[in-house]
Amino acid sequence: MTKRIITLTTDYGTQDHYTAVLKGVILALAPDVRIVDVTHDIPPHDVAGGAFVLSQIWSWFPAGTIHVAVVDPGVGSQRRVLVGRYGDSLLVVPDNGLLTFVHREHPVEALHVAEDRRFFLSRVSSTFHGRDVLAPLAAHLALGVRPDRFGRSAERIELLDIPFRAVRSGEGFAGHVLHVDRFGTLVTNVQASQLDETPGRAGAWHVSVDGVDLGALKATFADVPKGEPVAFVGGGGFVEIAVNQGRAVDRFGRNPPVDVRPVAV
Amino acid sequence: MTKRIITLTTDYGTQDHYTAVLKGVILALAPDVRIVDVTHDIPPHDVAGGAFVLSQIWSWFPAGTIHVAVVDPGVGSQRRVLVGRYGDSLLVVPDNGLLTFVHREHPVEALHVAEDRRFFLSRVSSTFHGRDVLAPLAAHLALGVRPDRFGRSAERIELLDIPFRAVRSGEGFAGHVLHVDRFGTLVTNVQASQLDETPGRAGAWHVSVDGVDLGALKATFADVPKGEPVAFVGGGGFVEIAVNQGRAVDRFGRNPPVDVRPVAV
Amino acid sequence: MTKRIITLTTDYGTQDHYTAVLKGVILALAPDVRIVDVTHDIPPHDVAGGAFVLSQIWSWFPAGTIHVAVVDPGVGSQRRVLVGRYGDSLLVVPDNGLLTFVHREHPVEALHVAEDRRFFLSRVSSTFHGRDVLAPLAAHLALGVRPDRFGRSAERIELLDIPFRAVRSGEGFAGHVLHVDRFGTLVTNVQASQLDETPGRAGAWHVSVDGVDLGALKATFADVPKGEPVAFVGGGGFVEIAVNQGRAVDRFGRNPPVDVRPVAV
Repeated sequence: MTKRIITLTTDYGTQDHYTAVLKGVILALAPDVRIVDVTHDIPPHDVAGGAFVLSQIWSWFPAGTIHVAVVDPGVGSQRRVLVGRYGDSLLVVPDNGLLTFVHREHPVEALHVAEDRRFFLSRVSSTFHGRDVLAPLAAHLALGVRPDRFGRSAERIELLDIPFRAVRSGEGFAGHVLHVDRFGTLVTNVQASQLDETPGRAGAWHVSVDGVDLGALKATFADVPKGEPVAFVGGGGFVEIAVNQGRAVDRFGRNPPVDVRPVAV
Repeated sequence: MTKRIITLTTDYGTQDHYTAVLKGVILALAPDVRIVDVTHDIPPHDVAGGAFVLSQIWSWFPAGTIHVAVVDPGVGSQRRVLVGRYGDSLLVVPDNGLLTFVHREHPVEALHVAEDRRFFLSRVSSTFHGRDVLAPLAAHLALGVRPDRFGRSAERIELLDIPFRAVRSGEGFAGHVLHVDRFGTLVTNVQASQLDETPGRAGAWHVSVDGVDLGALKATFADVPKGEPVAFVGGGGFVEIAVNQGRAVDRFGRNPPVDVRPVAV
Repeated sequence: MTKRIITLTTDYGTQDHYTAVLKGVILALAPDVRIVDVTHDIPPHDVAGGAFVLSQIWSWFPAGTIHVAVVDPGVGSQRRVLVGRYGDSLLVVPDNGLLTFVHREHPVEALHVAEDRRFFLSRVSSTFHGRDVLAPLAAHLALGVRPDRFGRSAERIELLDIPFRAVRSGEGFAGHVLHVDRFGTLVTNVQASQLDETPGRAGAWHVSVDGVDLGALKATFADVPKGEPVAFVGGGGFVEIAVNQGRAVDRFGRNPPVDVRPVAV
């Protein structure tokens, strides 16, 4: 039988012992599981950043994959831990908004509060629930425990007040930046599926960023000369603002207004 | 049978080829082993930093796990390589202090010098013993070779002159910082087990850092307002100094004196 | 049967979702493959840097290993994707110079253009060929598909104009820096095998860097006092310029001229 996969998305960084301790806990409980690091470089306490990454990775993994995300500034307070089933995947997170974009875009099949302490480590600290709660929960899921055994159904879920899709503005869209990636590229919330909604207009969109006209949407950053800014639909289906072999964030900042509107015919 | 695990703790960083070469060497010798990266971001040559991380991870892994640590400023000199058995785990390190905290806190079951070159790569360089010596030793351990076949028992071991437990100071403890983590939190050598030693006093301790009074030990950083400093017993059992959603190291520096004493009744 | 290994060398960084998506795609197609991260910290768009790391890791892995490298500033343009067989290994790369050093130093057994879209994801984006093309190709190779099924033999290959071996200069060699590593050590293109070519002279070479005389080649950086510069033959077989427990790049810059010549007898 193919091994169950547990992915890890955290703000723990890579310099300390925290992520390795999670892996030790998981492997001690579920020795045959396969662990995949998504990232541990979510900026500290950046729940929205973790929510974005989680939304971009979960559906690419095989059925049955268990995704754990730990960005948890409220650890030790009364915030709950949730286990959600979306499609064929299970997601284990603190209930602080990490599921925002997954939850808004996909039907939730089941959502449970993890409260049965038999599935935690026997001693639960106040500050390291990744180790004491979320890692053991994921290991138990990998061993075949059903999420409804962890606790009652959750009736609500914390969601961040961040629009994952751009808002209409006249005939176009007023977008904002969801994520700045390693290349300094700005990933906006203007989604290709929104542009496609206007039949016959795909490819006929005009982009400006903070008032700077970038011309028509291109296919890729290599469609403009080196050093020039460019807008295109990226691999995730979002309109992205880049500088060919440069860094758009250095030109436009982290959160410029983005305007996308149909080319006048 | 469950696969043997080899963990890697190094100062090799993640930008170069070094860690991948270690993995290639291990997998070429022991194809079925499971490799877990602990961290490769120990600051260059920071043996104390490596010793701390090693002390915090080793006991969380399943029985039989082999932990390799390579922070090795003396590579190519006469420093030895040691294989130690602590509990159910095997640790493979240059003999330069990396075992300090593990060794002081746990009984060593066996300690051997690795000197039989049949268990090294056939050509041993002067500067890359991680690849040529430590990785092959770990692979051979994973294949079932007993550590006593590597060489004679070690009669001494290099230990760093760093106190892992705070020293008594009147009725309290004078502590220092063992580790600064990704969140800028200061992990001190005042251990919860020391505070518990004074019956009835647990929870009734007062902390000051560099003369700044932080009040009583709290349960977690979320017990103070955002931006405020706080002391609590962290997940590793050490008193930690944090700033809620901020960075204590930016307020107090890397090595402030820490004073923990009983609340006057 | 031992699992096939796929290694990943990219400039995707570790903060985003990109590398995890590659892993999801691979595991969804080839669930039993073992994935090894080489590095995701190649500087953005630094094809030469990726080519160097790839050249240093590929031959250490077990026979049958599939190495994927993605540093791809020309993604979405007409650049091809190649699958090359070198020794017992398969390498999957955009045809932009990433194979330069492997190809110059080792006979290529076979080289194919990947053009049969049945081995790509069904939708290929313009900017994320790592996910849509290279990861699926690697997964299919791991499943046993022969590279010649991907497309016709390649008749040429893009190679960077960077000398992997130092050029002769009188009785010595004029070298340059191929790579600056995490420790700030300068890895030059003066290769030990070049120095050995002059019988009887091994060990009798004199090194200067940017006009600064470093004296004779040493065995290791620990052969000079802490803080002193030193030249030695590193673990990869290159003459390296280091500062004992310091950073040579801070003293000499990233690309100083390096002169290695026989000691006058």
